[in-house]
Amino acid sequence: MIRLFVTDALSSAARAAPSPDQARYLTTVMRLGVGDEVALFNGRDGEWRARVAEVSKRGCSLESMEQTRPQALGPDLDLVVALVKRARLETIVEKAAELGARRVQLVVTRRTNADHTNVGRLQAIATEAAEQTGRLDVPQVLEPVKLDKLLDGWDAARKLMFCDEGGDARPALDALADEGPWAILIGPEGGFAPEERERLRAAAFVTPVSLGPRILRADTAAISALTLWQAKLGDWRDAP
Amino acid sequence: MIRLFVTDALSSAARAAPSPDQARYLTTVMRLGVGDEVALFNGRDGEWRARVAEVSKRGCSLESMEQTRPQALGPDLDLVVALVKRARLETIVEKAAELGARRVQLVVTRRTNADHTNVGRLQAIATEAAEQTGRLDVPQVLEPVKLDKLLDGWDAARKLMFCDEGGDARPALDALADEGPWAILIGPEGGFAPEERERLRAAAFVTPVSLGPRILRADTAAISALTLWQAKLGDWRDAP
Repeated sequence: MIRLFVTDALSSAARAAPSPDQARYLTTVMRLGVGDEVALFNGRDGEWRARVAEVSKRGCSLESMEQTRPQALGPDLDLVVALVKRARLETIVEKAAELGARRVQLVVTRRTNADHTNVGRLQAIATEAAEQTGRLDVPQVLEPVKLDKLLDGWDAARKLMFCDEGGDARPALDALADEGPWAILIGPEGGFAPEERERLRAAAFVTPVSLGPRILRADTAAISALTLWQAKLGDWRDAP
Repeated sequence: MIRLFVTDALSSAARAAPSPDQARYLTTVMRLGVGDEVALFNGRDGEWRARVAEVSKRGCSLESMEQTRPQALGPDLDLVVALVKRARLETIVEKAAELGARRVQLVVTRRTNADHTNVGRLQAIATEAAEQTGRLDVPQVLEPVKLDKLLDGWDAARKLMFCDEGGDARPALDALADEGPWAILIGPEGGFAPEERERLRAAAFVTPVSLGPRILRADTAAISALTLWQAKLGDWRDAP
């Protein structure tokens, strides 16, 4: 069944208007017609079985029929990721959605080559991945900020998993402990500058971790770190 | 420093001939000249510091100078992966090299849409990823075989981690135990057929595992499974 994220409220017999892209996908690509069913979620009202109520040249209208899953939220996990090359950044955002991150904060570091990116496109990738992975919310992709500024305003109650290539960090599975809100930090292709690394290692909220003996590309490091966090502290611990 | 995989033997003052593609990369893309240094490995003789000894129109010649790392082999881990769509399969092979798999066995399952692929191209991707990740061997990519045939001839001493979407498998970190040779099985986009799943669940060498509550694409599942295996049973356990 096709799953779509919509912004409208979902309740019994409520109408939802898909975006023009979604409407085109439903009617032109998937060739749905009046009466065909889809699943809808909006991040607030759970998942709803819905049907195509109307098709016109300008789009289509969906009617929610019954709630199939109550709203639920995954663990409180953010991904903080440097502006790496576009293709890898898009992969990272897609995988963050699949692996249950709540937010993706883009950051600019000393060795980041770019200082801006198309956040709207990344948000669309996050939305599509959330639709396909079955979650009931969409991770929010946040405009890039400078790493130093982000650390200046960091809420010390949120732990930060720092994937530290440079040396003596403990294996991630050993180092990860403490329930509560977390974030994972993934650096740029060239790694962190010495002064960034020093600041991170000195912060009380930072947990440096090692991701094994081989050099990982940024997208691999992000997926591995999200996986290990979910397996050790997140919702992969629960039996299905 | 540029790292290259070569097939020649490496010893003091031995000459190695890079492939035409490698030679083009060294001299035309990276503009190396006589005397410039590279690192070489061949999967047998460790890693060697080498220098460009000669450049001609037809290529270049490298001379190994001193061994910088003795030969070492990662844990005995294979990845068995269904022929998923090309872009995702290429990602999986790249990541298998980064995450330390020794071999990648391609398989055809009931719901696999293809029965062949360009294995030479996948081998080249594995080689390049091995060069960049710093390992001292290159994972071998093996021609596709049918899953049933592979299971018929399976060495029961090798455990098989079966990423089972269909239900009651235990979380991977809990289910993974036992040292020794292992393989990880990743199915096609449409999942395994019921009779395949039944056969897998019944085999004594199979350990079914769950990869969390969300639906993962094949490339994500492969990276997550390799990560969890390395962290629980492989070389990510060792302090750096």
